[in-house]
Amino acid sequence: MRALRFDGTRLHLASDLPDPVAGPDEALVRVHLAGICRTDLEICRGYLGFRGTPGHEWVGEVVTAPDAALRGARVVGEINFGCGTCDRCRGGLARHCPTRRVQGIVGADGAFAELMVVPAAVLHRLPEELPDRLAVFTEPVAAAFEILEQLGGVGGVRALVLGDGKLGLLVGQVLAAAGARVRVTGHHAEKLAVAERLGLETGPPDPGADLVVDASGSPGALRDALALVRPRGTVVLKTTVAEEHRLDLATAVVNEVTLVGSRCGPFMPALASLAGGVQVAPLIDAVYPLADGVEAFAHAARRGALKVLVAPAG
Amino acid sequence: MRALRFDGTRLHLASDLPDPVAGPDEALVRVHLAGICRTDLEICRGYLGFRGTPGHEWVGEVVTAPDAALRGARVVGEINFGCGTCDRCRGGLARHCPTRRVQGIVGADGAFAELMVVPAAVLHRLPEELPDRLAVFTEPVAAAFEILEQLGGVGGVRALVLGDGKLGLLVGQVLAAAGARVRVTGHHAEKLAVAERLGLETGPPDPGADLVVDASGSPGALRDALALVRPRGTVVLKTTVAEEHRLDLATAVVNEVTLVGSRCGPFMPALASLAGGVQVAPLIDAVYPLADGVEAFAHAARRGALKVLVAPAG
Repeated sequence: MRALRFDGTRLHLASDLPDPVAGPDEALVRVHLAGICRTDLEICRGYLGFRGTPGHEWVGEVVTAPDAALRGARVVGEINFGCGTCDRCRGGLARHCPTRRVQGIVGADGAFAELMVVPAAVLHRLPEELPDRLAVFTEPVAAAFEILEQLGGVGGVRALVLGDGKLGLLVGQVLAAAGARVRVTGHHAEKLAVAERLGLETGPPDPGADLVVDASGSPGALRDALALVRPRGTVVLKTTVAEEHRLDLATAVVNEVTLVGSRCGPFMPALASLAGGVQVAPLIDAVYPLADGVEAFAHAARRGALKVLVAPAG
Repeated sequence: MRALRFDGTRLHLASDLPDPVAGPDEALVRVHLAGICRTDLEICRGYLGFRGTPGHEWVGEVVTAPDAALRGARVVGEINFGCGTCDRCRGGLARHCPTRRVQGIVGADGAFAELMVVPAAVLHRLPEELPDRLAVFTEPVAAAFEILEQLGGVGGVRALVLGDGKLGLLVGQVLAAAGARVRVTGHHAEKLAVAERLGLETGPPDPGADLVVDASGSPGALRDALALVRPRGTVVLKTTVAEEHRLDLATAVVNEVTLVGSRCGPFMPALASLAGGVQVAPLIDAVYPLADGVEAFAHAARRGALKVLVAPAG
């Protein structure tokens, strides 16, 4: 089979890989569509030392699974592969299992491949009416919903989203749907225009926000976030970059700001929202066949790019 | 009158200052006892550019006040002098008033003086049975209670306090009294011995704490805190130092850690606790007369020093 492989130096298309083989609790999945995320670009710059097939946003079709009823089902999958037996896994928090693998990021091959193997436990069956090109956004939409899971309600909250990229536009929509008054800020006119078409307020940030979400992907944004949040307000950090932050946290202490690290989220509300809430189609920049996957990554890395999808089955 | 003054370069005793004059809403207070806090030492290194009389931990006696009934009363006082009219002041959060002065720190002279003027609104009358040498700890004990106010309950929580200094020993006691399982860590054998006499567990930190409180005063401790807290755990930052933190926050994001900046706290529970809970007497290293105030500061800055008090009325 074919897959995009990162060898520590460069990403390339491998055409003669053996088909992966599913273990007893695993499913073999034929990938329909996979999204390129900022983390994938970071991985191709060496983040976390990953080697193998990246890709953790995907939609596909079950080829084999321990539960025969799943065969042929269209599915999406959670990206954290927990051990299944530790306290966290049993408590429903496999995404914080200390020995987890993370698909396409830590210890497990990902979705830029014709076939892949994932634990059957991570699969979510898709409703028929949800097309692949929307369902492929389940993982990043779940990451946006994680903010609601962590903060509880945001009704009436004055929220500022730093970053007009893919994640910023999803976070903005999810917060707005939950009742926050949202402004999205960024540096890309074309992306801000998308934000406005999605019904989100844009414009320069004004200080005193109750909630600031850093979805910028930039290590400098935390400093801005701390300057823009009100005393006793909350800053949510969505940026995981392989760089050190340099900042004076005295202001955060004096203003008693709460900083919340936020990562992967719940798939259930994301799927419900994709069926009739959050709009993701305007975020799609392009769809490439797997054969042009390296070019797809170059496109995704361009300034101003939104979501670039790769279609291994295309 | 006499006071300790910081002129931007050095701290010195001034002996011929005019007595301060109370305005319409202010009280004139004769200071009995004032504590030297880490922030005072930072101020004498240039923190916040303060010039004047430092000191914000004190107990004293009202000389004049708008409410005649207060005259002669023994009092302590909150350190944030709010405008009294903004939304935050009216909401009971004068400590976050955007135009506040902060006694001995920003725009208002402090307590290392024979006499001082403070807004009458910040005063709390002391119960007769609470002696000066305990009451002088009200402000730092309130700062420890702020953690409870911010986090809610800590019952059963596995808490790690980084820092065996004055604040660490107070925080440890307040968390333990609220039901947390507390371990205090630090680098000073004599202070850790005090912690043990106070009934607190000591020893090397082991990772996986639900709650880590950085009361170390060291900019490097946040990195340790992030390594020691469990996924989805909480780190409380009590350290305000005039230095930049350099750290990789990716781990905080991946582990979804919550960082809570924490500063001044509520006086009421602090006073209640001083009357029969938190033990502060073992934290007193020495009491100096005001004439030896500069020496008192030198003592407080020594490695291993605990609380040094200055007695302007002595």
